[in-house]
Amino acid sequence: MIKVGIVGGTGYTGVELLRLLSRHEGAKVTAVTSRKEAGMPVADMYPSLRGWIDISFSTPEDANLKECDVVFFATPHGVAMAQARELLDAGVKVIDLAADFRLKDPVEFQKWYAMEHSCTDLLTEAVYGFPEVNREAIKQARLVGMAGCYPTSVQLGFLPLLEGGKQWIDASTLIADCKSGVSGAGRKAEVHTLLAEAGDNFKAYGVKGHRHLPEITQGLVAVHGKPVGLTFVPHLVPMIRGIHSTLYARILPEGRDVDYQKVFEERFAHEPFVDVMPAGSTPETRSVRGSNIARIAVHRPGNGDLLVILVVEDNLVKGASGQAVQVMNLMFGLPERQGLDIVPLLP
Amino acid sequence: MIKVGIVGGTGYTGVELLRLLSRHEGAKVTAVTSRKEAGMPVADMYPSLRGWIDISFSTPEDANLKECDVVFFATPHGVAMAQARELLDAGVKVIDLAADFRLKDPVEFQKWYAMEHSCTDLLTEAVYGFPEVNREAIKQARLVGMAGCYPTSVQLGFLPLLEGGKQWIDASTLIADCKSGVSGAGRKAEVHTLLAEAGDNFKAYGVKGHRHLPEITQGLVAVHGKPVGLTFVPHLVPMIRGIHSTLYARILPEGRDVDYQKVFEERFAHEPFVDVMPAGSTPETRSVRGSNIARIAVHRPGNGDLLVILVVEDNLVKGASGQAVQVMNLMFGLPERQGLDIVPLLP
Amino acid sequence: MIKVGIVGGTGYTGVELLRLLSRHEGAKVTAVTSRKEAGMPVADMYPSLRGWIDISFSTPEDANLKECDVVFFATPHGVAMAQARELLDAGVKVIDLAADFRLKDPVEFQKWYAMEHSCTDLLTEAVYGFPEVNREAIKQARLVGMAGCYPTSVQLGFLPLLEGGKQWIDASTLIADCKSGVSGAGRKAEVHTLLAEAGDNFKAYGVKGHRHLPEITQGLVAVHGKPVGLTFVPHLVPMIRGIHSTLYARILPEGRDVDYQKVFEERFAHEPFVDVMPAGSTPETRSVRGSNIARIAVHRPGNGDLLVILVVEDNLVKGASGQAVQVMNLMFGLPERQGLDIVPLLP
Amino acid sequence: MIKVGIVGGTGYTGVELLRLLSRHEGAKVTAVTSRKEAGMPVADMYPSLRGWIDISFSTPEDANLKECDVVFFATPHGVAMAQARELLDAGVKVIDLAADFRLKDPVEFQKWYAMEHSCTDLLTEAVYGFPEVNREAIKQARLVGMAGCYPTSVQLGFLPLLEGGKQWIDASTLIADCKSGVSGAGRKAEVHTLLAEAGDNFKAYGVKGHRHLPEITQGLVAVHGKPVGLTFVPHLVPMIRGIHSTLYARILPEGRDVDYQKVFEERFAHEPFVDVMPAGSTPETRSVRGSNIARIAVHRPGNGDLLVILVVEDNLVKGASGQAVQVMNLMFGLPERQGLDIVPLLP
Repeated sequence: MIKVGIVGGTGYTGVELLRLLSRHEGAKVTAVTSRKEAGMPVADMYPSLRGWIDISFSTPEDANLKECDVVFFATPHGVAMAQARELLDAGVKVIDLAADFRLKDPVEFQKWYAMEHSCTDLLTEAVYGFPEVNREAIKQARLVGMAGCYPTSVQLGFLPLLEGGKQWIDASTLIADCKSGVSGAGRKAEVHTLLAEAGDNFKAYGVKGHRHLPEITQGLVAVHGKPVGLTFVPHLVPMIRGIHSTLYARILPEGRDVDYQKVFEERFAHEPFVDVMPAGSTPETRSVRGSNIARIAVHRPGNGDLLVILVVEDNLVKGASGQAVQVMNLMFGLPERQGLDIVPLLP
Repeated sequence: MIKVGIVGGTGYTGVELLRLLSRHEGAKVTAVTSRKEAGMPVADMYPSLRGWIDISFSTPEDANLKECDVVFFATPHGVAMAQARELLDAGVKVIDLAADFRLKDPVEFQKWYAMEHSCTDLLTEAVYGFPEVNREAIKQARLVGMAGCYPTSVQLGFLPLLEGGKQWIDASTLIADCKSGVSGAGRKAEVHTLLAEAGDNFKAYGVKGHRHLPEITQGLVAVHGKPVGLTFVPHLVPMIRGIHSTLYARILPEGRDVDYQKVFEERFAHEPFVDVMPAGSTPETRSVRGSNIARIAVHRPGNGDLLVILVVEDNLVKGASGQAVQVMNLMFGLPERQGLDIVPLLP
Repeated sequence: MIKVGIVGGTGYTGVELLRLLSRHEGAKVTAVTSRKEAGMPVADMYPSLRGWIDISFSTPEDANLKECDVVFFATPHGVAMAQARELLDAGVKVIDLAADFRLKDPVEFQKWYAMEHSCTDLLTEAVYGFPEVNREAIKQARLVGMAGCYPTSVQLGFLPLLEGGKQWIDASTLIADCKSGVSGAGRKAEVHTLLAEAGDNFKAYGVKGHRHLPEITQGLVAVHGKPVGLTFVPHLVPMIRGIHSTLYARILPEGRDVDYQKVFEERFAHEPFVDVMPAGSTPETRSVRGSNIARIAVHRPGNGDLLVILVVEDNLVKGASGQAVQVMNLMFGLPERQGLDIVPLLP
Repeated sequence: MIKVGIVGGTGYTGVELLRLLSRHEGAKVTAVTSRKEAGMPVADMYPSLRGWIDISFSTPEDANLKECDVVFFATPHGVAMAQARELLDAGVKVIDLAADFRLKDPVEFQKWYAMEHSCTDLLTEAVYGFPEVNREAIKQARLVGMAGCYPTSVQLGFLPLLEGGKQWIDASTLIADCKSGVSGAGRKAEVHTLLAEAGDNFKAYGVKGHRHLPEITQGLVAVHGKPVGLTFVPHLVPMIRGIHSTLYARILPEGRDVDYQKVFEERFAHEPFVDVMPAGSTPETRSVRGSNIARIAVHRPGNGDLLVILVVEDNLVKGASGQAVQVMNLMFGLPERQGLDIVPLLP
């Protein structure tokens, strides 16, 4: 049994890790830290876990994280980079669900996250936690910076069109019109995500620039091998879980005769958590609620020169904690699906 | 034109006052204070008011509230009692939407609101802002403490059964099972009213004791003239506006032959904002959304000895700001409906 | 492996059975009937089941239900009673999720369901599917009529107070103020459960009389051994899943010194799917979302003579399909928790 | 007072007309038809109108629509074209909220609405009910086919960029990523808009082709004077009211130095119901809830060559019944804002 520590277990990615790991037959959560809630049984904060998790929150000092095999950071940005080295030095693997190890360029990190990166050397070592691209690197990694929620869905949708420098679409005019449920904002006391503010309401935000833009671009450039131009417009949906990304790509002459449905089906045929829907489908976010699956549909309206790719995922699972467990399984040689055999909850 | 000042215009009762007063033909908002947002145009915080409200938030110092004819306090508990006397002394009428002038007993106030009452003499003068009972007193008042949201709905429903010492029902075993939308918690950054927490969810709260219990009891005792025993269980509904109170009362032998439908219809026949529905109705909260109407239905299941009274109101209108405008109209001799001629928004 | 047939797999209790049984290690769904959708892969209607269920809907004729070990009826009222005998005669066990075998009195059935009961002799044999009371009878049963959603929650809450003729509370003045998410109305095209009608809205319904009232009363009388008087007021909550029952009971002199928290804890100590929360708790419906758990909290406000019992369950799981799987496990000697080891989905 | 008849008053556009017209000081609703509900007081179906509307539904035969000054058709597609001529011949003006008189080409109509157009000559006469473009023609019209909900928002957003044959943007690659609340689907008993289906969920639909696509294209071509290529992807949002259109347009070399914020502000400076927000804004649908306002924000991310235009409207008001009242005001020489002076309901 892998011994798992979770730093910052009071937020949504934390409780989601607990939900998934409490049934994982190859791993056991041995410590969950929260300085603020130290001493409180985890199940007192999250009654949904009564009977599943018996431990209490502990202070970082008491948690003995160095005795874990792996530590997840489900913390605000900046925490993991301060603590990762000590754990790595102690032989503990580290999986960060925040942004500390996503962007390879510390200048970009500082620009978007308003803090200096405190361990730039680890940035070089860190592997981007996106199994559909980096599976082999993840298997060898000590330190993984998990892909963000929007970036996972957008990259999955553009991947088959850009990989290996393909010239089927105009990579300089990509558009990602993305919609997320409010849990993506985390379990923070804020006005704009109150039910009375975000309920029965819809809006865009971050149009001028969103932290996930450089992450997505970095990822797409990495697979494409050439520059990529992306416009990313996120929107807030009055629902709890789920991301729906509507992606637009202009087909180039070279790409006119490509069978895109087939391209997507073949690309993801062996991926355990990516489901390419039949042609003409419009996937719903609830069809993946609570599960690690992303579903994709490929459209080419009027057989014209614009591709419309629809991608849905549960932002807390495939967009965060589920993908992190998938990565953990890879890092420890466990079956990739272990602990993730969950049927989506519908309705 | 009455000159109106609003202290604390950034919360939900504040913006609701602005919505109602911006179309009121006998009143004009001349000052809205917010120390934190001073200088910001009100319509920048609430784009729904663009074109309707031109003024900016001002500091209390700059607001010249003493030049107003009336000042509404849409503030946290404790603010009005600190500022009311100075305004009253300057000849300004005061309407408090918080709890400072609701409870007549300062000991009770301190018990439930965890602060000492700082101007107990004004408590004696203050009139309880509940027009269906206190209309004449309100007309003469300088200082009104508005009824709370739950208390308005519960008192309206029990009023015809208890008034004047009637012995139709057992006043010692009243039950109020109340359900409120989340805007009742105000526009405060808190975790438990996030969409991701309160959405798609239902729960009771405050079962051990809620601040509105003593207020309701005080009001019912006042009209009944005898002791009243009430169990009050509030619940949080995943919706924005609306209160639904389900009230239970045991019929005494003396009340067995009473025609309760008729009793309610007659009691409220001349009330401009109380609508007794036809027998057998089940009023919906959305049927009063955005309006100052309360709708009531009277049930006696199986013609047995239990009365079930259903009351709906918009907690921000009849339960707060609308009733406050109604009170202002009364205090200044304006038509009681002025500024409140709003058709509910359905769907 | 038990071979399972489902009659009427297109509604919410049907898809929920499929969700639960697709991961059940001791049972396999071999037929799902729907005359209307015959030939369509089940996963085409419910993409959440893609990868989990490979079969298609079939006509009742093609389904070979007689070769199943057990058949679930997830159908409208009246279907099971027309088909049960033939299956039973063929040695197939039958579990009905509708109301055909709930009420023991065919006159009551006809009164509330507006149809004559077509096999009253089977009514005598049928066992009421409520394991917390009937576990041993269920183990021996060929035919089970599952408890309804509201009845499960209300009976769980009153059970420890009434069982064995206890005189702690006044059994003649019970009140159940219940609130349900809209999935309780089923997957039927109806106006009143449209999002635009039921969303951001709250109302009572069925105050004059609801089909679940005689079922609850029958159950309570059975455990109490004496008459029971109950007022039942259901309400519709703008959420998808979940029932919250707020129960009120008057304490009699004989019950004044009872430790009710302890009574509940002891009564359900060995029940795998009933969780008595710590004193003072207010359980949320989301704390059981997707799981077969019911959570109960016991309150006695002001230490007075009124008990307030709060019960939450997922209406589609413990209130329907999950409890039906629990019953199947009992009928076939499987571990009672098998296939039901699901952590609630929160948030 | 204008005498108003409404054909089909039981749907959402019907009740919304009633809400708006019940307070309109220049018009009076004298007949509301519904064959199915004839005889029922309108306020029995819509308790929100109790005290505001006293009439009952009547059959078309009893309604004496020919004595009205204007008749609104709030009916399914195909009804207005069957009845318009008789009313027009009797001197009654006709405003159709359905699609019968939107598309100028009867072949297109038949293609998208699956019925033959029964009075093609009236198509020539009919004016498109979109005041921001057709105000003068509307003033002279006897017959108006109101703009659809999506088309209103999309056309408002592209209008200033295309009008008069401008070459600022590439008119052949327009994208409209639109999101609508469920009331846009009408008050029809359907499964896919049940709260349990559409709630807590997000999806695209109609990607292959939606009826509003030819309407939008027709409108844009009319103002641009040249061909227009548009990709239109509608999505369903779990909310009741509101449309949010996110529009994308590629800037051509000729348009690089244009100040688009200024262009929009000047274009709509004198429009009573279009509000161009300050640069950098992200308008919320709730900021127009219940009102006839559309709010627009103009973005050019990174000062690149892609314009992102955000448009919000209430689909039942500016997208339907409110705009129809605006049109009625124009047709009868009333002040354009009359009856539409409503402050949006927020929260």
